[in-house]
Amino acid sequence: MQIGIIGLGRMGGNISRRLMKAGHQCVVFDTSAKPREALAREGATAAGSLAEMTKALVGKRRAVWVMLPAGEITEKAVEHLGGLLQPNDIIIDGGNSFYKDDIRRAKKLAQKHIHYIDCGTSGGVWGIERGYCLMIGGPKEAVDYLDPVFAALAPGLGDIPRTPGREKAASHAERGYIHAGPSGAGHFVKMVHNGIEYGLMQAYAEGFDILRNKDSKDLPEDERFALNMPDIAEVWRRGSVISSWLLDLGAAALAKDPQLKEFSGYVQDSGEGRWTVEAAIEEAVPADVLSTALYARFRSRQEHNFGEKILSAMRFGFGGHIEGNEPIDPETKPKKHDHSAAPNAAE
Amino acid sequence: MQIGIIGLGRMGGNISRRLMKAGHQCVVFDTSAKPREALAREGATAAGSLAEMTKALVGKRRAVWVMLPAGEITEKAVEHLGGLLQPNDIIIDGGNSFYKDDIRRAKKLAQKHIHYIDCGTSGGVWGIERGYCLMIGGPKEAVDYLDPVFAALAPGLGDIPRTPGREKAASHAERGYIHAGPSGAGHFVKMVHNGIEYGLMQAYAEGFDILRNKDSKDLPEDERFALNMPDIAEVWRRGSVISSWLLDLGAAALAKDPQLKEFSGYVQDSGEGRWTVEAAIEEAVPADVLSTALYARFRSRQEHNFGEKILSAMRFGFGGHIEGNEPIDPETKPKKHDHSAAPNAAE
Amino acid sequence: MQIGIIGLGRMGGNISRRLMKAGHQCVVFDTSAKPREALAREGATAAGSLAEMTKALVGKRRAVWVMLPAGEITEKAVEHLGGLLQPNDIIIDGGNSFYKDDIRRAKKLAQKHIHYIDCGTSGGVWGIERGYCLMIGGPKEAVDYLDPVFAALAPGLGDIPRTPGREKAASHAERGYIHAGPSGAGHFVKMVHNGIEYGLMQAYAEGFDILRNKDSKDLPEDERFALNMPDIAEVWRRGSVISSWLLDLGAAALAKDPQLKEFSGYVQDSGEGRWTVEAAIEEAVPADVLSTALYARFRSRQEHNFGEKILSAMRFGFGGHIEGNEPIDPETKPKKHDHSAAPNAAE
Amino acid sequence: MQIGIIGLGRMGGNISRRLMKAGHQCVVFDTSAKPREALAREGATAAGSLAEMTKALVGKRRAVWVMLPAGEITEKAVEHLGGLLQPNDIIIDGGNSFYKDDIRRAKKLAQKHIHYIDCGTSGGVWGIERGYCLMIGGPKEAVDYLDPVFAALAPGLGDIPRTPGREKAASHAERGYIHAGPSGAGHFVKMVHNGIEYGLMQAYAEGFDILRNKDSKDLPEDERFALNMPDIAEVWRRGSVISSWLLDLGAAALAKDPQLKEFSGYVQDSGEGRWTVEAAIEEAVPADVLSTALYARFRSRQEHNFGEKILSAMRFGFGGHIEGNEPIDPETKPKKHDHSAAPNAAE
Repeated sequence: MQIGIIGLGRMGGNISRRLMKAGHQCVVFDTSAKPREALAREGATAAGSLAEMTKALVGKRRAVWVMLPAGEITEKAVEHLGGLLQPNDIIIDGGNSFYKDDIRRAKKLAQKHIHYIDCGTSGGVWGIERGYCLMIGGPKEAVDYLDPVFAALAPGLGDIPRTPGREKAASHAERGYIHAGPSGAGHFVKMVHNGIEYGLMQAYAEGFDILRNKDSKDLPEDERFALNMPDIAEVWRRGSVISSWLLDLGAAALAKDPQLKEFSGYVQDSGEGRWTVEAAIEEAVPADVLSTALYARFRSRQEHNFGEKILSAMRFGFGGHIEGNEPIDPETKPKKHDHSAAPNAAE
Repeated sequence: MQIGIIGLGRMGGNISRRLMKAGHQCVVFDTSAKPREALAREGATAAGSLAEMTKALVGKRRAVWVMLPAGEITEKAVEHLGGLLQPNDIIIDGGNSFYKDDIRRAKKLAQKHIHYIDCGTSGGVWGIERGYCLMIGGPKEAVDYLDPVFAALAPGLGDIPRTPGREKAASHAERGYIHAGPSGAGHFVKMVHNGIEYGLMQAYAEGFDILRNKDSKDLPEDERFALNMPDIAEVWRRGSVISSWLLDLGAAALAKDPQLKEFSGYVQDSGEGRWTVEAAIEEAVPADVLSTALYARFRSRQEHNFGEKILSAMRFGFGGHIEGNEPIDPETKPKKHDHSAAPNAAE
Repeated sequence: MQIGIIGLGRMGGNISRRLMKAGHQCVVFDTSAKPREALAREGATAAGSLAEMTKALVGKRRAVWVMLPAGEITEKAVEHLGGLLQPNDIIIDGGNSFYKDDIRRAKKLAQKHIHYIDCGTSGGVWGIERGYCLMIGGPKEAVDYLDPVFAALAPGLGDIPRTPGREKAASHAERGYIHAGPSGAGHFVKMVHNGIEYGLMQAYAEGFDILRNKDSKDLPEDERFALNMPDIAEVWRRGSVISSWLLDLGAAALAKDPQLKEFSGYVQDSGEGRWTVEAAIEEAVPADVLSTALYARFRSRQEHNFGEKILSAMRFGFGGHIEGNEPIDPETKPKKHDHSAAPNAAE
Repeated sequence: MQIGIIGLGRMGGNISRRLMKAGHQCVVFDTSAKPREALAREGATAAGSLAEMTKALVGKRRAVWVMLPAGEITEKAVEHLGGLLQPNDIIIDGGNSFYKDDIRRAKKLAQKHIHYIDCGTSGGVWGIERGYCLMIGGPKEAVDYLDPVFAALAPGLGDIPRTPGREKAASHAERGYIHAGPSGAGHFVKMVHNGIEYGLMQAYAEGFDILRNKDSKDLPEDERFALNMPDIAEVWRRGSVISSWLLDLGAAALAKDPQLKEFSGYVQDSGEGRWTVEAAIEEAVPADVLSTALYARFRSRQEHNFGEKILSAMRFGFGGHIEGNEPIDPETKPKKHDHSAAPNAAE
């Protein structure tokens, strides 16, 4: 079928390509001409504006996939499209919008009988080959109408082993996409997906940190190991309980450079990790791992924070401890193995 | 080659089977006759005692694989074997021993010129088919000598995609086993593996809890979703960033029963999760996720703890809050969306 | 001066009393007649409605203190008052409103030239004697006008030792109240105050839990102590680094009943703890302690949650672990001191 | 009574002074001559060696207070004293020894009928005036014998309000010292005290960090407050629920310098915080706050750790995210208030 795609970055461009490969026709738009032209060369119809795009969509029911950074940019594009489209047309937000924004937008567009679908899209730069995992929210009729599009983007059954108990009929879920529920449900599930992602990543990060520091001079000599990070990551991919796609990525990075020298250690976060914690709080669900994984990223981007200075100030207050500007001399660090923590003042 | 196996439970029995399938000869022992006899019927030589086993091992260099619960039982078995074996013989502890126990045992046995190998073994009940991921510590010469055994137990290259940058030569790591370092290094790596496992599992657990409670009556009506847990777990296996073997297991459990009614929610922990946290502390490595994942298990096994009563007592002290024996009426819970937290006393 | 008080619960009633004791005149209102009449007997003018109250305030500039549960009830009262008051009059919200609600309300009322002050009020049921710690936000002129009211409610210098460096002039802060900033700043500071309160309480709770469980049969016999909770709480009040008012309250509760039998362990939370975490996330400030303290309260109110069942389901999936409905037999728990964690399957 | 004091640092010196002020005779020793001589001028008998000290103690029952850094130094001093003292004599370890070391030492010394007392000592540099809070473990008879010493060091009833329910008889606890239990119990209680201290400090630290960052340009303009840290700390000392001695110290530091410029933010930890977490794990008690407070200190002393690089490497792996060496440009940070998290790739 024919579909419009707005936003031709890493995600939107590859989505167009995967759709065209499956025989769909793509009318594409981006404010930047370069990716537009590239896709035109690959068979897409390039539009010079949103209005041009909606005109180029010639079927009786138009569908436009918005693949833009969440927030203001997506908001404006959806609003603009709302003015260009007609009753029964469909807007799909494939980005990482906040699900409450979806609920609001869907309500507003429903007044014009335009259908709004929120589609959480996982797969990253690998999605063009692996397929995208799609978590879809919105009115069932519109979601069903677009089934050929979702089916083309999703991985399909592939060679991933079937889950026992699901062998009889290949459900949508098994083919890599689900209609999660009404408006907002798709992005909500994607949001939690990303929240979990932060937790998983932090678990590996802490584990590798413990492995890496096992060579520390603070430890008794016969308890020090200089462990091979790339080999450990690799062996865990092979029959262990903690094999995963994220570990595959970690193993690839370590194979390339065991020291990971090109990475600074400043770790960004996008909105989903934050919203997941807020959702947990709204529901009164304990989410210690997901929160602490988020905070580790916050801390990774800071120099010494004010809280840490308060700690030092209090310590100085009760014990006269003076804490220098320099990393602590390993020789004077408390050594756990002989329990020789040795403050001058007994606090 | 010929190898002795002590302990024929779920792990030891299947290890024997996988070794025999690869052409190795197993002399097996267990205090219980039933598994001994079962393996004898499958081609193993069953021994009635440790002494009988060591006699039945006829090669010039004997190797015995101990696959017993970590702690006292393994300790005694290793000690007993130390008295029965001769210089150059090899003991492999394939269980989950604490790595500092390995270091101690290896030193003691080295005095008798008996080699001690610690082999962290991951794969659970699926290892017999999938192969076991092996993390090996100990003297290189002995580890190399047993290479045919480790190679047979490990998964081998299989159909797991190669890690980019590793395609040239199939390393041990790619075939599913590594010589991690000197005595203790094998179990140390396996210990951290299990610590990570706790963190990964808790990340999924929190995520599913947030999904599940999205139907809560505390939430505004249009923000409530009754989400399909089995379908979400399934779709995440398909092209998403958080696909993993643990997720496969979760998806299988949810496919069988979306309510997981047969599970009580009491979650045990074995020693590795605890030791991982202790290792982090020894190294002064922050391990928030791994710790909190462990604590969630502790809490899952408790009724209201004393700490919670202290909290209530303090609250009563400053605010006159009385907290009943019953779960809080959802009607009076703070509702985040309208910010109507409503204590009588303003704390 | 003359002041109206709306809401005569534990906080509003005592605030009226403390103001009258300082010579101020209170016109009081509550939907319930009983507390109204009680205060009338103590010298207040009781009003039968908001309209009656605003009429009874006879000065040229009226001030009304709203002391109601945060959320809808306060919202409505402020709205209603907005219709009854005149330019230059002042509304003080002394409850626990969300600071963003303050900002919104202040803006709206400013259109009518009515001044809105948000006043975070700490002190609980003890405030009538100890005085209330006040954190005030809003337009400086109005805050200054009400200085006699705030000064009367606050503790004053009292016998609390002066902070070194502050001895010269007794600031407002030293007398127990501050003008924290523009609208919302008062409740924001109070909100963080309560967030800290959760963290402090949880720190004590965990500590006492560790003390209490030092008698556990899981520990080696000579490392078990049956510790005296009331005495420990008491001694820590005396010269220790962790003495605090919260500890005083804990010590009083333990002196009354060392087992705290009357407390269920279900711990409620009000909105401030949640909003503090959300504020931290908005600012990208790591707030591990404040978050985990909140989550401990969530968990205290739950039976086994879905997340815990997922954990058990995964464990069963990889290791065949079956986790019963009963608390784990202490005899089979992992015993750290001899490192005898003993799973059958080696995960 | 007469008592020997070993170790004349900040703690040992002041302890000697406080004892002499109460009329006790001190025989003091330190490897450094300066503090020895200073105390001699203040009335103490200075000894040039441990042997000299034990000779200078002339009563029929000698008592020696060891006030040295925990670990090897204390271990050696206790061992040395064990050789110099006679049956019925008493050694008090007033430092921060690990309680399991106490249990071991007490057993060993008991063979020679020498009594060993472990005395957790809180109060820091202020103890000389405020008195020391003492948590004592060991044989009751010896503890009772030294009651005059403990009573002199402890704060006594002072002007701290009595705990309701304890008014009748002034217990030891109310006078600031307790006999907590058998050998090790004193230091165990002190250890948990310090664990709690870490949690309390971190709660304040996070709260002040949230206050401080409320001025961030990432926030909507009308939600930004430039808050006065010294005033807030001061006002919380006055009638609020979170008043404490640690807050007093924080307020004093902030009064001196609101920016805390002289503090680097590198925060050390002594052994007690670590041992408290280990004790929690041994007892299977969840200790999220105490652990995370410890980890915050670890992290404060690190540059970007390996775990953070792994995170970046994985992010690059799935999303092509490149994370620079520079703190993130505030303009591109996710802004929560408009939910505009905007990754190029939709993870």
